[in-house]
Amino acid sequence: MVLKGEIITIGNELISGSQVDTNGAYLAERLWSRGIPIQRIMSVGDDPELIVRAVTESAERADLVVLTGGLGPTSDDITTEATARALKRKLVLHPEAWEDLKKRIRAFGAEATESQKKQAYIPEGADLIPNRKGTAPGYLLKEAQTWVIVLPGVPWEMKAMVEESILPRLEAEWKDRPWYRSRMLMLFGLSESKANELLLDITRDPHDLQIAFLPHFPEVRIRLTVHGSSIQNAEEKLAYWEKTVRERFGPYVFGVDGESLEAVVGKLLREKKATLAVAESCTGGLIGHRLTNIPGSSDYLERVVVTYSNQSKMDLLKVPEHIIKAHGAVSEPTARFMAEGVRALAGTDLGLATTGIAGPTGGSPEKPVGTVFICLADKQEASTKLYHFPGDRHQIKVMTAQVALNRLRHYLLPPKKPVL
Amino acid sequence: MVLKGEIITIGNELISGSQVDTNGAYLAERLWSRGIPIQRIMSVGDDPELIVRAVTESAERADLVVLTGGLGPTSDDITTEATARALKRKLVLHPEAWEDLKKRIRAFGAEATESQKKQAYIPEGADLIPNRKGTAPGYLLKEAQTWVIVLPGVPWEMKAMVEESILPRLEAEWKDRPWYRSRMLMLFGLSESKANELLLDITRDPHDLQIAFLPHFPEVRIRLTVHGSSIQNAEEKLAYWEKTVRERFGPYVFGVDGESLEAVVGKLLREKKATLAVAESCTGGLIGHRLTNIPGSSDYLERVVVTYSNQSKMDLLKVPEHIIKAHGAVSEPTARFMAEGVRALAGTDLGLATTGIAGPTGGSPEKPVGTVFICLADKQEASTKLYHFPGDRHQIKVMTAQVALNRLRHYLLPPKKPVL
Repeated sequence: MVLKGEIITIGNELISGSQVDTNGAYLAERLWSRGIPIQRIMSVGDDPELIVRAVTESAERADLVVLTGGLGPTSDDITTEATARALKRKLVLHPEAWEDLKKRIRAFGAEATESQKKQAYIPEGADLIPNRKGTAPGYLLKEAQTWVIVLPGVPWEMKAMVEESILPRLEAEWKDRPWYRSRMLMLFGLSESKANELLLDITRDPHDLQIAFLPHFPEVRIRLTVHGSSIQNAEEKLAYWEKTVRERFGPYVFGVDGESLEAVVGKLLREKKATLAVAESCTGGLIGHRLTNIPGSSDYLERVVVTYSNQSKMDLLKVPEHIIKAHGAVSEPTARFMAEGVRALAGTDLGLATTGIAGPTGGSPEKPVGTVFICLADKQEASTKLYHFPGDRHQIKVMTAQVALNRLRHYLLPPKKPVL
Repeated sequence: MVLKGEIITIGNELISGSQVDTNGAYLAERLWSRGIPIQRIMSVGDDPELIVRAVTESAERADLVVLTGGLGPTSDDITTEATARALKRKLVLHPEAWEDLKKRIRAFGAEATESQKKQAYIPEGADLIPNRKGTAPGYLLKEAQTWVIVLPGVPWEMKAMVEESILPRLEAEWKDRPWYRSRMLMLFGLSESKANELLLDITRDPHDLQIAFLPHFPEVRIRLTVHGSSIQNAEEKLAYWEKTVRERFGPYVFGVDGESLEAVVGKLLREKKATLAVAESCTGGLIGHRLTNIPGSSDYLERVVVTYSNQSKMDLLKVPEHIIKAHGAVSEPTARFMAEGVRALAGTDLGLATTGIAGPTGGSPEKPVGTVFICLADKQEASTKLYHFPGDRHQIKVMTAQVALNRLRHYLLPPKKPVL
């Protein structure tokens, strides 16, 4: 039995174009991972008629409808009222929700007001879904044919509720369907079509494995979904297929389930007890920004210098003036002196450097926009490579930072025979 | 007469949660700016039945339906076929589209194939909308009650077509409705509720002005929309209201229509012929990354150093060891020495420095997570301020970078009496 899901995200900020809807994509990904295909993601404004219509229609079509947004205390927040109308239920004060709300507000030294009390009214017969990170609880309504789940729109509140309550609950209650498990493999360095080619014999056979290719510039993500007769059975199958697919891709797989490349690099640096200094030119600080997004990165990242001028390359990295004059700031020798210089001056194990032409201006016939040198240096040697990246300024910066971090990852990985 | 619009974005990558739909928000913003309120934004997968149903339903409800995605040459691309079915039209080869397609493909030294020819078939009676940046043209279908516009899903192709063809065409053909003009004012430094308060007397009166508050962390955006009897009349009204609203907010308005703060700062630095060096600690390179996103930023940005370790603060910025020992790396004196140091060593007009605790660890009772010092130094003096930012590591980094860039902007602005 294949269940069908629909997602409705509510808020004027979404349909006015002020805010891109990210809740829809998140929910879709989590529900697909449990074997529930999503048919539509729909955004509607804070308009009762439109919400009632959307909920009514979705509940007729789908087995599971998830709504987010519009659960706050203000008069704009009308999701609960509209949902109750669509499903012909009364609103009742939920005592547990009301007690919890009063407690939370008291913790801030205030008393709950009548408009806040509104958040404790939920449709009759609904199961409360507690909100650990905010004031508005969610709830689950079981209709004859359809389950309707209503959640707050604040992403971190909603996500915690999905991971902690919704997914376990769906699995526990829908016992008659198979158990689904999924894993997202994160790849960098090969194209989607090449990845597809390497899995052709697997995707062609009628396996109990679903493979989805999810390009996400500059990465490729591959989602594996299996179903089994029990959790254990599903997990065993997933482990088998993950191993099989990983063998095809070898070190092109850098992480799983949304892990970032900088988190993986940070973990490897920590494991190897290696320290790092970075000299950026065309990436302008993006590598530093990404590395420092990881909590605790000060343990392995000693410094980053963004040497945008020639003078700063000489001052901060001791790149000799004659090298820049003879070869240019964007050149193999300059990249090498930058990586070696930052490593030596910082006294770290590793030095990483980028220099290139991000455009739109500054290119020449010999060194067109997109020409980039990346150098990685350790105590023994320095390895500089030349790249030609396509795209605009933003894409060239993103690609350069990604390739630089990925070279660091490959350097830190245990030695292994390349698979491709 | 108020027209109603709906937007349908098509693609498996959207409903599988792999790709966040950004086309929907862009189109919504552009259509609202021309006085067309959007009722729904819907994403559906590459499934003919679902697309037919979505188009049929939207065409019944709305005056304008815009579709994006699924116009490519592969078998997944079924938007045109499904649209023709929904609207009961035949598909015909559009000679002009076909000639254009052959010409484009020949320019790459290839010949158009049968599967590519598919892109030149459009529903009978549709007006072609040329695609200057790609191969798949769009088209416009006038039904009795509804206009249906179909566009490619590649954002830069779609956006060029909207700006160059769709918006002018809607205005030219819908002559019986008023002319709309809108402006987005970008604000930073005051809350949405404060902004709202300052405009209460304007929003309360029944003006021919619509004001929308569009929070966009960490900024507040205010969209003004007016309608008039002619383009000139609408533009005059918009100029009047923009002036009136700007007077209320003074320098809180940093830009218009999506301009970034770093672009505004870059323009001011260029106008003043001032040069800049940056010393970042808790922002980790984010300020450098933002500044270097602007083409030509090497003209005013001399260097950025990310001094994550105490040693690097001493080496690269000449912060005295005793200062760090006595006051800590996160302190007023350290921030001041950082800004003055980077300015003096780089030989620039200005030095900007950040040091703080981004968390989640590293906080203490005296200096909790979110404690940040920002210093701006010129040749004469240095001004350091202490901030306490709420939120997680990411939000603290973003807020610190934003406040730092905004202080630079205020410094560079022509002197003016503060309004608030």
